[in-house]
Amino acid sequence: MTASTIKALAFDVFGTVVDYRGTIIREGERLNRAKGLPVDWGQFADAWRARYRPSMDRVMRGELLWTNLDALHRLSMNDLLSEFQLDDHFNEDEREHLNRVWHRLLPWPDAIPGLTHLRKRFVLATLSNGNVALLVNMAKYSALPWDCILSAELVQAYKPDPRPYQMAIRMLGLQSHEVMMVAAHQEDLRSAQAQGMQAAFVPRPLEHGPHHVPDLTPDPAFEIVATDFIDLAQQLGT
Amino acid sequence: MTASTIKALAFDVFGTVVDYRGTIIREGERLNRAKGLPVDWGQFADAWRARYRPSMDRVMRGELLWTNLDALHRLSMNDLLSEFQLDDHFNEDEREHLNRVWHRLLPWPDAIPGLTHLRKRFVLATLSNGNVALLVNMAKYSALPWDCILSAELVQAYKPDPRPYQMAIRMLGLQSHEVMMVAAHQEDLRSAQAQGMQAAFVPRPLEHGPHHVPDLTPDPAFEIVATDFIDLAQQLGT
Repeated sequence: MTASTIKALAFDVFGTVVDYRGTIIREGERLNRAKGLPVDWGQFADAWRARYRPSMDRVMRGELLWTNLDALHRLSMNDLLSEFQLDDHFNEDEREHLNRVWHRLLPWPDAIPGLTHLRKRFVLATLSNGNVALLVNMAKYSALPWDCILSAELVQAYKPDPRPYQMAIRMLGLQSHEVMMVAAHQEDLRSAQAQGMQAAFVPRPLEHGPHHVPDLTPDPAFEIVATDFIDLAQQLGT
Repeated sequence: MTASTIKALAFDVFGTVVDYRGTIIREGERLNRAKGLPVDWGQFADAWRARYRPSMDRVMRGELLWTNLDALHRLSMNDLLSEFQLDDHFNEDEREHLNRVWHRLLPWPDAIPGLTHLRKRFVLATLSNGNVALLVNMAKYSALPWDCILSAELVQAYKPDPRPYQMAIRMLGLQSHEVMMVAAHQEDLRSAQAQGMQAAFVPRPLEHGPHHVPDLTPDPAFEIVATDFIDLAQQLGT
């Protein structure tokens, strides 16, 4: 264990801290009731998320000029509303509101208690592909206790590109091994480790819903594997 | 009054939120007692601050590659320790600790109560020439309730250059008139207004000590003039 050298924790957010799928279903079912719609919002959430990586890849390949995540989400959502035959049911204000569900994502139940413990000892930063405004609004909506909002937007390069990780280390004024990346996604952690950061894997088996539990066998190279943020806080001695 | 359009407040920090002169004197006097020194730390603080603008100007003129404020403070401090004939009294660790007094600056007494009120209604961001790590550590040291740490460091250009103000508006995802700059310094506010931001002037007559109270007659172009952050919160209806 190398907890004694750690000064800051950098958190992946979507899936790791907040439950996007659950929140989209929750808000969507309210829309179904209000509008008398029959939409399967679990399907909608899965389809929206399925476009996440490809949309960022278009930016990183240079097919799109820098486009922040709010704008990528909006492009994907417009397509999906058509696919789900919902075009006539959402006016511009309602589309903008739905797109901003990503600003209102609710944390996993252990997230705020765990972060609150961890914050006593460590600097807590986001390190997300979400844009700054999205992360700020999400934190305010759910009272997530970040010390610092760091985002791929600040370097106009999406994870797993090395630049966001390098930026986080530099902006926190630390050595790379003093920063631990916390994520539910092993690729994110391996990319952080490639920049010298430590890695804590917090699997979130329900991220993709109860019927799509991925193989979460942890890479043995990770310094910590924790069941949730409360367990992470305990393992880090807070 | 245009408070109804404001969504976020961007705060200058040194002098506006925290009392650098008072904190340096307080820590310095502890050093005098511990080391048996006769230093006038008010003079030291004033001399350190006097090098602040010229050191940033060197960067902005291109005489120095991008250098963050921690490093500029350190360059200035090294000179001052020589000038004050203190070279033999501070080893490397002690120099680094003294330089990081800027990470431990204490807030004016109204700052935290005022910010706590304002945070209920507005997004609160720093917009400082201090580097990100300095601002994060300062916030953690004194429990300053920021939603977001924004710094000139993110665009490698010091205020009053337009880029930090433009960056803040963009990162907050807002229109320029939805962001209000809060500062004790009129040049900072005029530069923010030049980028379309609103301006709240909170004069801090004791910033430079009791014997150097500047002319604080407010520019009539500012949307708000407030005596302190509690008054600001009241004027903004929080």
